[in-house]
This record gives sequence, structure tokens and C-alpha cells, in this order.
Amino acid sequence: MESGEQATPTFSPSAELPALSEQELAVLRQVGRDWCAGLPDGRRGELPLDPALNRYQSPAPGRFSRIAQVDLFRAAAPNHLVAEEPESAGPSGERLLARVQRVVLGPPLKSAAVVQERLRKLVALPVLSSDLLSSVAYGPEAMLAVLVLAGTTALGLSLPIAAVLLVLMITVGTSYRQTIRAYPHGAGSYVVASANLGSRLGLAAGAGLMMDYVLTVSVSVAAGVDAVVSALPRLAPLTVPLGLLVIAVLLAGNLRGLRASGSLFAAPTYAFVAAMLLLIVVGLAQAGRRGFAPTAAPPVSATEGLSLLLVLRAFASGATSMTGIEAVSNAVPVFKPLEWRNARTTLTWMVSLLVVMFAGIVALTHLQGVIPRPDQTALSQLARKTFHSGPLYGCVQVSTALILLLAANTAYQGFPRLLFFMARDGYAPRTFLRMGDRLVFSNGILILSVATAVLFTTFRGHTQRLIPLYAVGVFLAFTLSQAGMVRHWLRVRGPHWRRSMAINAVGAGLSALVLVTAAVTKFAEGAWVVVLAVPSVILVALRIKHHYDAVHTALAAHTLPPSPGRPEREENQEAVERPDQVRHLSVVPVARLDLAAIRALAYAVSLGQPVFAVHVSPDEEEDDRFRKQWESWGDHLRLEIIVSPHRAIIPSLARYLEALRALRPDVTLTVIMPEVVVKHWWHRPLHGHDTRRLRRAMRTVPGIVVTAVPIHVAA
Amino acid sequence: MESGEQATPTFSPSAELPALSEQELAVLRQVGRDWCAGLPDGRRGELPLDPALNRYQSPAPGRFSRIAQVDLFRAAAPNHLVAEEPESAGPSGERLLARVQRVVLGPPLKSAAVVQERLRKLVALPVLSSDLLSSVAYGPEAMLAVLVLAGTTALGLSLPIAAVLLVLMITVGTSYRQTIRAYPHGAGSYVVASANLGSRLGLAAGAGLMMDYVLTVSVSVAAGVDAVVSALPRLAPLTVPLGLLVIAVLLAGNLRGLRASGSLFAAPTYAFVAAMLLLIVVGLAQAGRRGFAPTAAPPVSATEGLSLLLVLRAFASGATSMTGIEAVSNAVPVFKPLEWRNARTTLTWMVSLLVVMFAGIVALTHLQGVIPRPDQTALSQLARKTFHSGPLYGCVQVSTALILLLAANTAYQGFPRLLFFMARDGYAPRTFLRMGDRLVFSNGILILSVATAVLFTTFRGHTQRLIPLYAVGVFLAFTLSQAGMVRHWLRVRGPHWRRSMAINAVGAGLSALVLVTAAVTKFAEGAWVVVLAVPSVILVALRIKHHYDAVHTALAAHTLPPSPGRPEREENQEAVERPDQVRHLSVVPVARLDLAAIRALAYAVSLGQPVFAVHVSPDEEEDDRFRKQWESWGDHLRLEIIVSPHRAIIPSLARYLEALRALRPDVTLTVIMPEVVVKHWWHRPLHGHDTRRLRRAMRTVPGIVVTAVPIHVAA
Repeated sequence: MESGEQATPTFSPSAELPALSEQELAVLRQVGRDWCAGLPDGRRGELPLDPALNRYQSPAPGRFSRIAQVDLFRAAAPNHLVAEEPESAGPSGERLLARVQRVVLGPPLKSAAVVQERLRKLVALPVLSSDLLSSVAYGPEAMLAVLVLAGTTALGLSLPIAAVLLVLMITVGTSYRQTIRAYPHGAGSYVVASANLGSRLGLAAGAGLMMDYVLTVSVSVAAGVDAVVSALPRLAPLTVPLGLLVIAVLLAGNLRGLRASGSLFAAPTYAFVAAMLLLIVVGLAQAGRRGFAPTAAPPVSATEGLSLLLVLRAFASGATSMTGIEAVSNAVPVFKPLEWRNARTTLTWMVSLLVVMFAGIVALTHLQGVIPRPDQTALSQLARKTFHSGPLYGCVQVSTALILLLAANTAYQGFPRLLFFMARDGYAPRTFLRMGDRLVFSNGILILSVATAVLFTTFRGHTQRLIPLYAVGVFLAFTLSQAGMVRHWLRVRGPHWRRSMAINAVGAGLSALVLVTAAVTKFAEGAWVVVLAVPSVILVALRIKHHYDAVHTALAAHTLPPSPGRPEREENQEAVERPDQVRHLSVVPVARLDLAAIRALAYAVSLGQPVFAVHVSPDEEEDDRFRKQWESWGDHLRLEIIVSPHRAIIPSLARYLEALRALRPDVTLTVIMPEVVVKHWWHRPLHGHDTRRLRRAMRTVPGIVVTAVPIHVAA
Repeated sequence: MESGEQATPTFSPSAELPALSEQELAVLRQVGRDWCAGLPDGRRGELPLDPALNRYQSPAPGRFSRIAQVDLFRAAAPNHLVAEEPESAGPSGERLLARVQRVVLGPPLKSAAVVQERLRKLVALPVLSSDLLSSVAYGPEAMLAVLVLAGTTALGLSLPIAAVLLVLMITVGTSYRQTIRAYPHGAGSYVVASANLGSRLGLAAGAGLMMDYVLTVSVSVAAGVDAVVSALPRLAPLTVPLGLLVIAVLLAGNLRGLRASGSLFAAPTYAFVAAMLLLIVVGLAQAGRRGFAPTAAPPVSATEGLSLLLVLRAFASGATSMTGIEAVSNAVPVFKPLEWRNARTTLTWMVSLLVVMFAGIVALTHLQGVIPRPDQTALSQLARKTFHSGPLYGCVQVSTALILLLAANTAYQGFPRLLFFMARDGYAPRTFLRMGDRLVFSNGILILSVATAVLFTTFRGHTQRLIPLYAVGVFLAFTLSQAGMVRHWLRVRGPHWRRSMAINAVGAGLSALVLVTAAVTKFAEGAWVVVLAVPSVILVALRIKHHYDAVHTALAAHTLPPSPGRPEREENQEAVERPDQVRHLSVVPVARLDLAAIRALAYAVSLGQPVFAVHVSPDEEEDDRFRKQWESWGDHLRLEIIVSPHRAIIPSLARYLEALRALRPDVTLTVIMPEVVVKHWWHRPLHGHDTRRLRRAMRTVPGIVVTAVPIHVAA
């Protein structure tokens, strides 16, 4: 079974620490050989304690020792400790925030648990299909909402448009089945497009998907709140707070982790499917009793003429019913083994359900003469006409609301994974590689929630105003993904490659048609946001990649050419790799000769490197006073006094250090400052932050190390 | 000439660095003797460069050196450099903020300039008297606003109440003349009360003054905006933004410094005095033509009965006309020499002007039959009746608005000075000791502006709603200040001490009466805020003092008893004062063996102290990978690997360090971490903040020094 070339997506917790290349290892070996010269003999092993925490030198527990901490590690092998679960520390659990987090999100999971977090098909179906299936709650209505602009009579066009959409659904679904077979480790549009069409088109697909995920959450939450408000009109003014509440619940649920989501979300999806099928069957039976004669829709006057543009807009709006079809191929690894086979089966089930439900609802809407209304969704009207306002109507609305609110959850699976892949390739900040305590990519989940909350609030939760933004990103990803598959088959040529390629080519062509239609016909209505955002995301991603590459090159270990022709002093002290090349000079800034300062001086002197003290005085008078203190103490070290007539203590010190460094760039300056640490945070404003300020001032100057020697005051 | 006991207020820029006591110096000498044992021989003078910046070892300027920096210092004496003006650095002036600050606030002033910032009497008068004199713009009206609650007839009581207030003004003014004589270096209520009545009552006076200053700004700005709105009623909706704008202008003006304020504020004060005197003369002349027969006021129905309580409330409101009378004695040092004599003369002028203006306005108001109206101030009505709506009316309103807006300026002189004195005594955060670039106490000025802006916005700029908060703080300070003077004369007994004491006793008694009246009669109207705030400020100040004292004690250098009976190992490594007692162990956390890590390892090894490396691995697989890298490099140092199955890199490292420390509290652990520093701030989110996170995690653990070895990447 072939697998994607560079693309073997594994969610390893060590993705943050990528391996060194063979070449890098070779350089490392060379660097290491030079080190021998720089090492004092017999340095190894002369430690005052055993770093493996065997207490062979342990003194009696004293006032300041906390022996309990030692037990948090167990020795698994020589020089090899394993940390125990953090929270078992007990007394250090003073932090309220950590406790609250534990209650809301559950205890941390070990990395080893990552394999167990897999889903059976019947659990994966609701988790991954809620996005796709729930689309029938707003897709058909979005199509009708455009058609009705040309008056009641134009609604009849919904049937042929729906027929085209059904063809599209089946084609794209079949097309994605090919992707799952080709990328059994799971690969979304980003991975497929990157691997086959190059990184730029891959990023375009990724950017499209990002928009898709954010809009999936926004539209699903908006439509879900609509379903609730249709049944309970009194809640209408609370649309925005309700939506934000739902986003918060999704955030917490997903931070808890995948398994919990699966079990939580299974029932509503199945309930929705059952409700829809029942609605369609009962509705068709009722219509059958009338001989399938359509009820006349209430007359609506046209505000626009019936044009090809309008039909295409209606088609693009209706195409939002397909959003979420890519979820399975993105998330193959969450299936139980054999992953790819289970994923394909699930995808087929999903698409079949979609086709039945979409066709049924469009047909029923036509037969019942339902038109879009601002106060009630089309589905709610349909259910009222079919079941009247009985308990069955309630079931439809409740299950619709639940599946829509849960549909947003699909994006919570896909979005962080997408960012993981992009970060692994260097196109997104590395922080998205980090797995949280619960083995989910918490940072991606947080970003998605924030973006969605902003979008939802901006659009005041109006579904039909969000729809125009939706289709562009989705179909951009679809198009690039299928086109990538065409390239894939051309290169790989596995069994039946011609048939697979043909399927993918048709899928790509149809998707591209929808993409162009959506971008052109809805540009003014909001699609321009996406049309602008996609290139911006690509640009930022490329800049990020450029930065990471530059940093990687700069940090690669390099071998210095041997001595001849090279000055003995290495000018850029930061490039020095060997201990014998480091030249030290320690500077101890002293403001007042108290215990903190004396401790810092003792620390500096005891390092055994050249050291002198410096005092910055705001005026001459204080200067004399300090010099007397220094002489009382014994004048043990060279003292330099800087008078700063402008009372700028830290800036003067910073400029002095820069001047020292300019004199001798081959010397590493270590600034050793005393730092008073108080017990309570509310005492911190009572003390200066000289260390922090100096560190900030010295940030841009190379070759300067700022060391704070803390002294803890219980007061 | 006698001076205040502990109180010789000097605004020294070195107040942040108080001198050591004789006892502390003695301990220092003892500590210094012990140090000899800990110093390696001949360490002094063996520096790789000359800290006095003489370039005897200067290499040729290289890529990274900035020789220009060296010229920013000049050697004034051996081991003694003077920093030049910061901004002359030139190329380092990249910071836009610094440039904007310079344009708005002017160039930094040298400390030596502090003496030159003195005022002549004729300049000091407007700066210090604007608060007092401007009070007549709202004080008489505040009195009438209470009386009118009992109907038009009650307004006749304004004359006897005003007579009592005039007696009070003269008494308190004379009383403050005694203070200036006794404290020629300037001493506000806080200093006088602290020196004579003890620190708690001193703090009470200080807290009262703080309220006073904040309310002076708020009430003056509110009344000034009222004056503008009386003339231009269309501006009424802009009351709050206008007030905030004025506060911002005051903030910027005062951050620029004192001298600028004096020249800026002289003209409006004199214009106001002239306008008021003209108003009174013309008004009385007009009334004289009518034979001084009062015009009947328009009838107003009573909403409250005429009671003693109401009269007392009116009295307390009218007493706000006296606010600002203490400004001169607070600010004696801003006068030109001979300071105390100039200050006394100025105070006498001020009080005389106040008496004339207050009496004249109350009399005119009575004669013209003016009653308070919500849309127009009483002064505006008076001016309209006297001058009609001609240019003279305009002059009155403009000069009233200006003096009121500038009156707020007096508080900008006093408030930061008060905080300086409190901080010098340890009752306020030390940051208030710091003089800004322009020789003003910038932090106090900022705090006052913020507090005022909040108060002004909360009360929507309504003068009459702010008045009830005003009198309590002021008269608390007055009472304690005069009472302190009574104690002072009893102890010091200079020439004429009996007479001075008698004057101060009368002043204290009358002030106390007003204080009690104001607190009781206006408690429900808002005075409760001040009644609660004063003890809160005292409590916070006492806690701050307690903390500073505890820190001072903890940081006092102490002599360790000589060896016998004491274990060789000092358990609390942070109490160690001698270099030979410091035991080092360096730990280098390594995530990846790149140049940054190798540089950190080289730095650590070159210090010549015991060192080992530690790697935290998120899983076993990565663990093996890292070990191979380490062996490729040459395995030069002891390596400890910690596997953290919960992927908590920094927390695991932190707990490991705590465990090490628990094993051997007598060892100072130095954690040496590589830190990648990027050039642009927008690249920072792309990198981890491991150093900062570890530093935060290690904050509470004593004996651990976290050192970041920076490596600058140009990318």
C-alpha cells in the first residue's frame, strides 16, 4: 500500500523536537572533537550531588528542603528519570487555576494514551458527519432564499438546481474515497495539495480550509440558534449570547479530548437522521395522498429579475450543503484499525445519507410550498406543516439544533490538525505542535474559538449573512485537493489508477466551477473577505517559513576552521562553540551595599572569573556616600562609579555595558545583579524591576548575559 | 532659625538610595573583614579590559562593535564616569515613543537644574493661589444651593454664614503663617502632623490631603467646564469629554516641569482677580444707585424645612471656598530665597484677595437676587446682570474658566510632593521617590491624573455632586496640621510661642468644627466615600511601611558567627556572604543540540564549576534520538534525561531542579539555558519562551539562579 511521499502525518508529542539531519550529526561530531581541547581534565563526575537523585549525599531534611519532591521522579534506567503525574505533588497544588482546569478538563493524559484515543465506525460517523449532515438544515434554505428574490415562480427552479447538486455530491464523495485509499494515514486537502502541487498551492488549500473551519463553526452555531429561536421566538434577542455560550461549551468539550466528544455527540446525530427520515417519509406520504400535487406557495413579489447570475448564486448557496464532506479523509487516523477501510465505509454511509436527506427535503419543500421567512427556518415550517406543533415537531427542532451545534465540533477536530501539519512544515508557529495535557492541540482549539466568536459577534449571528463567505474557502480546498490527486495518480500509477484519476479529475473540474461561481456571484455579498484572506494567510505562512529556515541555518552547529589565518580572538563571542574560547568578565551592578548586593558579589567572585562592581549614582553627593560604604566594606573589588546627571539609572548602565562590549567584543560580559524576591505578588509593585528592565535594555546587544541572583524575603 | 525635627524635606534625586546607618556600616566593616578569606589572591586588577573605558586594549572596530557608545561617557575622576545626555546617542534613538515624549515634554533636565526651578513671588502667587481664589467660583453657589432647598426666604441666611466663613478664613490663614515660620523648608499638613502628633495622625492628614488633591482637580475642572457651558449652552453634551481633555493637558503640562507651569498660568489668575474686582465694584456701584436695596429673588418653593442641620450643611458647603489655603505652606521650597519670608508674604496677599472676593460676591448675589440654576452658574448670572451680555461678561467667563482649569494645577504641585514625603518615610511605594527626566515626580502626576479622570467620569462632571466629598478631606488635613503646630510650639517654645500657639489652637478648633459638621451633615450625600477612604489609605500605608521595614531587616548585612558550633555547610545558601562559602553546580537544560545549546554548554563549562546537562523528553522515542545526538557530539558532560510522559517540559524541569535543591540546599544551582533572540518583535510568538517560563516556575524556590545565554539571530 503506497503512502503519501513526504506526508506521513503522525501526531507525535515529540514533533516539537525534530531530529537532526545526517549532515548536522556529522558537523556535531566534528564540533565535539574540538571540545576535548576546551575541557579541563577529569571534570566529569565531580558533581557535588548525584543528578539521578539517588540520595547518597543527602543531608538531614532541613528548614528549606522539600524531600517530597524527590519522590516525583523514578529512575527508569541509569541517567534516566521518569516524571510522575504533576498533580500528585500535593502541597504544590496551591494554584487555584490548575485545580479548576483539572475539574473542567479532566486529569492530564500520558503520551502513551494517544493510541487508545480511536473511534469505532459507529462512533466516528456522528463525530465526523455532523458537519456534512447538518448542512441540510441551512443549505436548501440558502438556495431558496436567493431564488425567492425573483418571486414565487422562480422557486420551481430549485428542483433542477438540486439535481445538479446531487450529482456534485456523489462525484466529490467518490473523489474523496480515492484520497482515503491513497493516503491511508489521513490527509486533508492541505497535505494532498502540498505533496502533489507544491507548497504554495498546498498553502492555498490550507488557507481555504482554515476559512472553512471558522465558518463551519460560525454558520452551524448560527443555524442551531435559529432552530431554537424558530421554536421559542421569545429567545430571539438572546441570539448572540446563546451562540457565544455554545462556542464556550465546544471549547471546553474539545479541550477535554476526543473520546469524550465521540460519546457525547453520537446520540444527537442519530436522532437528527431519524427525525429527518421520518419527516421525509411522513411528508411524502401526505403528499402522496394528495397525488403529489404541490401546494401553492404564498405569492412573493420579485425584487430582482430572474437571470443566469441569480441561478448561479442560488446554486453556490445550495452547495454549502456539501460542506464537511472532506472531514473523513482529514481524520483517517482517528478510526480504529484498519483505518483507511473503516474511513471509506463511513464516508460512503455519510454521502448516501446526505443525498437522501437533501433530495427529500428539497422535494418536500417544493411539495409543501414553503418559502424562506425571517422569523422561522424552512425546516421548522416543513416540520410544523407535517407534524403540526406536536411532540414530533419538537423532536425535529431539538435534534436539528443539537446536530448543528455539534456540527461545529467537526471543525474542532480538523482545524488544530491542519495547524499541526502546517507547523510541522514550518508554515505556522511551532506552538501548534504542542499537545495539551489531554492529548489535544489546545492552542489550535483556542484560536478557532476566538476567531469564531469574533466572526459570530460581528455578524450578530445571522446565518444567511454568513453563507456568502462560506462556499469559497471550502471549494478552493476541494478543487486543490482533487487536482492534487490527479497529479498523484499520474505519478504513482497504482492499480486502477486511470479510473481513480478520472474520478478525481471530474471532481476537481466540478469543484472549480463551483469555486469560481461562488467567488464571482457572491463577491460583493461578503466573499471578498475570503478572497482577500486566503492570499494573506499564504503570505504570512511563507514569511513564517522563511523565518524558521533562517533561524535554523543560523543555529546550525558549525565547525570553526583551525587556527592559522584566523585571529585568536573570536570577534562574535556568540558564535564561540568551545569552552576554552569563552573569555569572561563579570560585572556586578550595586545600588546599595545590603545583603542582596553582598550575596551577588560573593556569587560573582566565587565563579572564579574576572569581576568588577559598578554603581550608578544620580548625583555627586550620593556618589561620595556610596564610595564610603564601599571602603567601609573593605574595597575588595574594583569599583567603577557612573554618575548619571539625568537620573536614568538603568539606561546609563545599559549604555555603559554597550560601551564595554564595543571595546572588547571578544569578551562575554556577564551582568550579575541581586534581585529581591518577595513572597506575595501584591508586594511586587513596592520594589523596582531593575533586572527585568536591564534585561529588556540589553536584549538587542549580543554577547551579554544577564544573571539575577535571587534573594527571597519572607516579608 | 529652628527647623522641623525629622522633617527637612529636600527633593533629592538620590532619595531612592538612602544612606546606611552607623550600625549598618559597622556590620559592613565586619563582613568585609571575613571576605578576605574568600578572595583568591591577586584577583583585583586582572580584568581583560579597562572598566573606565580607556581603550588601551581596544581592538579595531569590527562588525559588531559600536565605538560611538564609548563617547557617551567622560571620565570625571579615576574610576568615575559621567554619562552624557541619553538622547545624544543618535543611532540608538530608533524608538518613536522616546522621540514623541521628547517633543511633548521637552529634553531631559540634569539633576543640578533642580535648584534653578524656583519662582518669584509674583509668579508663585498665580501658581499657588489659583486653587484658593478660584474657589469663589463655586463656594458661594454651593452654600446657596443648600439654603435654597428651604425656599427663597432662607437665602437671606447667606450673609451671617458668610460672615462666619470670613472669620474662619482669616483665622486659618493666620494659623498657616505660623506654620511657614516654623517649617521654613516647607511642610504640608502631613509633615507637620507626622512630626508632632505621631505617624498615624500624620498619615490621617496625608490621606485627607490626597482626597483633597484629587477633588481639587475634579471640582475645579467640573466648575471650569460649567463656566464654559454657561456661556455656550450648546457645549452641554460635551461636558465629560471636555473635562477629560483638560485633565490630559494638565498632565502633559506638569510632566514638562514647574517653570513652564508658572509662566503659563500667571496671566489667567491675574485676569480673574481683575475681572472679579471689577465685577464687585461695578455691581456695588449699581446697587448703590438703588440705595443698596436688594432685588427680590424669584420665588422658589421649599423642599425641606429650615433647620439647624440645613444651615450647617450650607456652612460646610460654603467652606469649600477655603480649599487651597494650605498650598503655600506645602510648597515653600519653590520660592526664591529667602523662601519662608516670600511664602508668608504671598500667603497674606492670597488670603486678603480671597476675603475681598468672597465677601463681595456673596453681597452682590444677595443684592442682585440671584438663585442657583442648573443651566447657568451663579457667577455667570451675576456677570450677566451687571455687564449684560457684552465683552465684559465674556471676560468674566473666560477668566473664570481658565483660573478654574488652572486651579487644578495646584494639586499637581502638591500631590506628587506629598507622595514623595510619604515614600521617603516608607509609607508609599518607593517609585514615588523617582524624579522624571524633567525633574518632576512623574509617577505622582500620572496617578493623580488617572484618579481624577475616573472620579470626574463617574460623577459625569457635576460640580454640585462632587462638593459634598470635598470638605471632609481638606478640613481633616487643616485640623491635624494646626493641632500639630500647637504641639510644636509647646515643645519648641521659640520667640512669641504663646501667641503662635494660641493662633494655631483657634485655627485647629474651628477647623475641627467644620470637619465634624461636614462629615455628619453630608455623610449620606457622598462624604461617606471620604470617611471610608481615609482609614483605608492609612491602613495600606501602614502595611507598606511594615513590608519595607521587614525587607530592610531581612536584607541588612549580618555577620555569621565564626566556625565552631556552626555546620560547615550553610543550609540557606542565600544567606551566604562570603565567596568561599558559595558551592556551585551548573545545570544546562538542552532541548536540541544546535549552536545555541553548544554555546550555552561552552559558557557553562568555561566558568570552571561543576556542570551537567539535562534533557527533558516527551517520550521514549525522542529520548533515544537525543541520546544518539549527545553521543555523536562526544558525550563530554554528564547527561541526565527526564522523560515526561505528560509532555510538560518546563514543569518537569522545574520539579527536577526543586528535587536537586532538596537534596543539597547548601549548593547554589545555576541553570544555564540558551535563549534565541530574534530581531523583530513580531517574530517572538514564533519561538518558545522557555527561559521566561522556567524563571517564573523557579521564582519561589530559593538558591536557584536562572541564567539565559542569548544567541542573536538576524533572521
